[in-house]
Amino acid sequence: MDEFVLSADVGGTNIRVAVVDGTGTMHLRNEASTPIAGSPADIAGVISQLAEAVTFDLDTHRQPVIFGLAIPAVIDFETGRVSRSPNLPQLNGVEFGKIVGGMTGTGVVLENDATAAAIGEHWLGAASGAKDVVCITLGTGVGGGLILNGLPYSGADGTAGEIGHICVEPEGPPCGCGSRGCLEQFASATAIVRIYREKIESSGISNVSPSPELTAAEIFNYAHAGDEISLSVFRRVGYYLGIAFADLVNVLNPELIVITGGVSAAWPYFIERTEAEMKSRAFQQPAERVKIVPGLLGDDAGILGAAKMALDQ
Amino acid sequence: MDEFVLSADVGGTNIRVAVVDGTGTMHLRNEASTPIAGSPADIAGVISQLAEAVTFDLDTHRQPVIFGLAIPAVIDFETGRVSRSPNLPQLNGVEFGKIVGGMTGTGVVLENDATAAAIGEHWLGAASGAKDVVCITLGTGVGGGLILNGLPYSGADGTAGEIGHICVEPEGPPCGCGSRGCLEQFASATAIVRIYREKIESSGISNVSPSPELTAAEIFNYAHAGDEISLSVFRRVGYYLGIAFADLVNVLNPELIVITGGVSAAWPYFIERTEAEMKSRAFQQPAERVKIVPGLLGDDAGILGAAKMALDQ
Repeated sequence: MDEFVLSADVGGTNIRVAVVDGTGTMHLRNEASTPIAGSPADIAGVISQLAEAVTFDLDTHRQPVIFGLAIPAVIDFETGRVSRSPNLPQLNGVEFGKIVGGMTGTGVVLENDATAAAIGEHWLGAASGAKDVVCITLGTGVGGGLILNGLPYSGADGTAGEIGHICVEPEGPPCGCGSRGCLEQFASATAIVRIYREKIESSGISNVSPSPELTAAEIFNYAHAGDEISLSVFRRVGYYLGIAFADLVNVLNPELIVITGGVSAAWPYFIERTEAEMKSRAFQQPAERVKIVPGLLGDDAGILGAAKMALDQ
Repeated sequence: MDEFVLSADVGGTNIRVAVVDGTGTMHLRNEASTPIAGSPADIAGVISQLAEAVTFDLDTHRQPVIFGLAIPAVIDFETGRVSRSPNLPQLNGVEFGKIVGGMTGTGVVLENDATAAAIGEHWLGAASGAKDVVCITLGTGVGGGLILNGLPYSGADGTAGEIGHICVEPEGPPCGCGSRGCLEQFASATAIVRIYREKIESSGISNVSPSPELTAAEIFNYAHAGDEISLSVFRRVGYYLGIAFADLVNVLNPELIVITGGVSAAWPYFIERTEAEMKSRAFQQPAERVKIVPGLLGDDAGILGAAKMALDQ
C-alpha cells in the first residue's frame, strides 16, 4: 500500500505516534511523556514534534495528509470539540483536532481511545471480520468500545460504550462516576486490590497485613502461586464480569466480546467463572453464539484504530 | 402515496392485518383470534384470509405485492426460519414467511414484534427523526427493540433488544429466562402483582388478603385512589427501571427511551423515581440528553413497523 497516515494514541502517561500504511504496518513510531500539566497547545506540540520525527525521512510525495488521534475523551463529533476528558481535563471544551491540525498541516480525525481500540481489534485483531463486537478494557478502570453492524458505535453524544458502568450490584460500593455497584468496582485493577483487602480483613487472618502499596499485579502473582484468597478474588471478578456480559449478550447479541487491558493477564483465573455465569444468565441462543476472547493487539489497538479512522477518510 | 403494502401483527391472542400506504395510513384493517393450538399452516391460513378480506375491494393494479409480518419470535434472517417463538412454539424452526407467501402470493418480510414496534415508533411515533432509540414494552413481560444509527438493530442472531433481561438484582427472584433478578421480575404486570403480594404479606395487615386473580390493572386502580402500598409498588418498579435505563444510557447513549405497553399507563406512579434513579447513576452528559417518553402509537406500533419494513423492500 502506498498510502501513509499519521496516527497517535494520546494517553494520560505517554503519547505515541506512528506512520501506518493501509495494511496496518507501522513503519515508524516514536513516543514521549504526556505533558499532563501543560496546556492543550503543549500537548499538541508534543504530538506535532513526534509526528515530525516519524515523517522526517519520508519522501515528499509520501507525506501523510491525515492524522488519526485516539484521545482519552468524549468527543462531540458535530462540533469537533472535546466534551469531557477526565484524565486530561485541560482539553474539555477544546477543538483539539484543529490545534493539532494547525501545527502538523494535516487533516485530523479524533476518536475516543476505547472506541479506537475496538476499531483496531476489529480491523486487524481479535474481532477481524465480525459484525457486532463488544470490546472491554480491564485496566485501572474498565472501559469499552462497540462495533455494531460493522461500524463503530458512539451514540448520540459520543459517550456510548461505558461498559464499566453497567450496574451489577444496585447497592454496591460507590463508584467514581457517582453511581453504586458499577462493574468497574468489581473488575478493575483498583477493585481487585479492594476486594483482596476486604477478603483478608473478613478472613480474620491477623498475621497477614497487605502493604499499602499492594497492586493487582502482586495479587495476580499470589494467584499464580496458588494462594486461595487471591484465586477467590479473581473468581469474584469473573462472577461480576459474567453478569455484565449476560446483559450485553441479551441486549446486543454480539458475535464477540474482546477483553483487553492489564487485568486480562489474569484470564485463567476469572474466565471460567465469567463464562459459566454469562451462560447461566443470558438467553441460550446468543450465549452459545458469543465468543469471549482476549485482544490480539495489546497496547497497539488504539493507535491502529486511529490509523484506520484516518485511512477511511 | 400510491404504494400499498400488507402488514400484520401476529400476537399470542389476536392476529391483525391491514393495508397500509407509504404515509402510514391504514386503509383497511381486520382481525381474528390466533389459532394458538393450530399448525403453522393454520396460523398462516388465518393471516391469508384476513389479507384477502382487506384487499378484496382494491383495484387490481393496487394489490399489495409485499407483506410485512411482525411475529412474537426470534427470526434467523439468513435462513428466514423462526429460531424461537415462546408463545407460538409450533413456529420454531419453520420458514413461516415462505408459508404465508405461498398462500398470499406476496413477498413476505418477517420482523420480531418488539423490533417492529420500535420501527413503528421511529417511523411515525414518539421516536420520529431520532437516530439512537431504545424502545421498551412493559406488559405481561418486558420486551424491547433498538434503533441504532437510524436502523433497526437485531444483533448477530436476531435476538438483540432483550431489555427485560438486564440484571438489576444479581441474586434477585428467579426469572422465566433462567437467570435471576431480571428487570422483567420488577417491571412487568406479573411482577407488579408479585411485589404487591410481598408488600401486603410483609406489612402484617392480616385483614387484607389479595384475591388470587388480582391483576396489575387493579393495583393501578388502588394507586390511582391513593393507596400507599400500591404507590410504593410502582416506586419500586420505577427504581429498577431507573437502574436498567442507566445501564442503557451508559452503554448506548440513546436520544430517546420510549416506553409502551399496558403498564406504561402507570406512568405517573413510576416515572419520577425512574428519572431520578437513572440520573443519579448514569453519566451526566448522556443522562441529560436522553428523553424518556411514552409511545404514541399504542397497539398499532407493531403493525405500522411491519408495514415500514415492507415499504422499504
